[in-house]
Amino acid sequence: MTKQERATRTRQALIRSAAVVFEQHGYAQARLTLISSGAGVSTGALHFHFENKAAVAEAVVAEASRGLRDMSAAIRRGTDTALQALVDTSHALVELLRGDPVSRAGFRLSCDGERAAAPDLRMEWHHRVRELLEEAAAAGTLADDIAREDAVAATVAVTAGFEVLGRHDTEWLSSYRLTGFWQLLLPRLAAAKTLPLLDPAGTGAVASPRPGPGAASAVGEAEETAALTAEPT
Amino acid sequence: MTKQERATRTRQALIRSAAVVFEQHGYAQARLTLISSGAGVSTGALHFHFENKAAVAEAVVAEASRGLRDMSAAIRRGTDTALQALVDTSHALVELLRGDPVSRAGFRLSCDGERAAAPDLRMEWHHRVRELLEEAAAAGTLADDIAREDAVAATVAVTAGFEVLGRHDTEWLSSYRLTGFWQLLLPRLAAAKTLPLLDPAGTGAVASPRPGPGAASAVGEAEETAALTAEPT
Repeated sequence: MTKQERATRTRQALIRSAAVVFEQHGYAQARLTLISSGAGVSTGALHFHFENKAAVAEAVVAEASRGLRDMSAAIRRGTDTALQALVDTSHALVELLRGDPVSRAGFRLSCDGERAAAPDLRMEWHHRVRELLEEAAAAGTLADDIAREDAVAATVAVTAGFEVLGRHDTEWLSSYRLTGFWQLLLPRLAAAKTLPLLDPAGTGAVASPRPGPGAASAVGEAEETAALTAEPT
Repeated sequence: MTKQERATRTRQALIRSAAVVFEQHGYAQARLTLISSGAGVSTGALHFHFENKAAVAEAVVAEASRGLRDMSAAIRRGTDTALQALVDTSHALVELLRGDPVSRAGFRLSCDGERAAAPDLRMEWHHRVRELLEEAAAAGTLADDIAREDAVAATVAVTAGFEVLGRHDTEWLSSYRLTGFWQLLLPRLAAAKTLPLLDPAGTGAVASPRPGPGAASAVGEAEETAALTAEPT
């Protein structure tokens, strides 16, 4: 492993640890020593990568944003229709919120006003939903009698609702909840000829929705990273 | 005005001022002196009514809960079908979130985990949505082919989404957004014979959705209350 690779792994471990600490303590109460020790490195190593807590938070949001974009692009490539891609992407988003602390913390940091870290993940999600529904409309797979903006808003609001309700009760992030929503909405949304082709439970077109180095930094590996790191400790 | 009436008005003014301060500064940063001065009274008067900040927050949530319950009951009395009552109640809820700082702060305090003040307003709203949809099902006004729990969950998630998105962009609390959602969903939700009877924009059955003393404590009146108050200042 090169120096560069080790530095990248340490940075990822710090981002992941920060996400966990932000989630448990909130941004205001999060202490840098907790973040560095959670990644198995010293605060010196943390400061090698990040100037201050705000910079760590920005990195968490940027990483969550990257994960969301990569996931969404991979799903679109692997799915026939834009409408099914929308369903699949929403399932993958809920899966990220369920299993990935970086995505969860990214949404909270970017949206809760405790600090307005750019980019705004809900805004990015809003744009993605609109893009996919515009694509579906252009392909003639949307029902004629619905207002597209209503469909965009309903999808964005429902997923925002699942995210915020899921903070207190993870059942809201179960895939059956989202499947139920699409079972309700798709018959209104899809053109008659398209509806039978759609799976409200998602096609699972992309098995692992969050590829890239972020996925590798599990807890055990973070410790390994700490042992291997070449930055000041 | 009796002593008792004056005390009630001061208490309401304090609750309203606290809601504004909690909303602007967050619970953790909210200072009691700001709350009392916002109500035009001294901190001594505040402590006559509330032991500490937690007690003020509880009173805000309790007042928001009362407002929600009263509004919902009044709408049900004034509306023919349970399904229209659900639509109307959701519109009144969004109107409260748009115009009433006590309702807004109540939802945040009760749901954001910065402190878990009882009662949980989202839970209460969840129960109300379920009650109305059960009533609609019993009356045969729901479509046969939908799962009622999916309709409950979609309604609760969408309104939670509007609430949280509306914190940063009040357009999410516009009535046309919610009307768009019901235009999308009602044709799926309602039995064929019921659909033509429903108005997705709400019937406005209850013009003022939040009766009771809470509605009276506007800013100007809070100052009047302060001048009239008989509690220690």
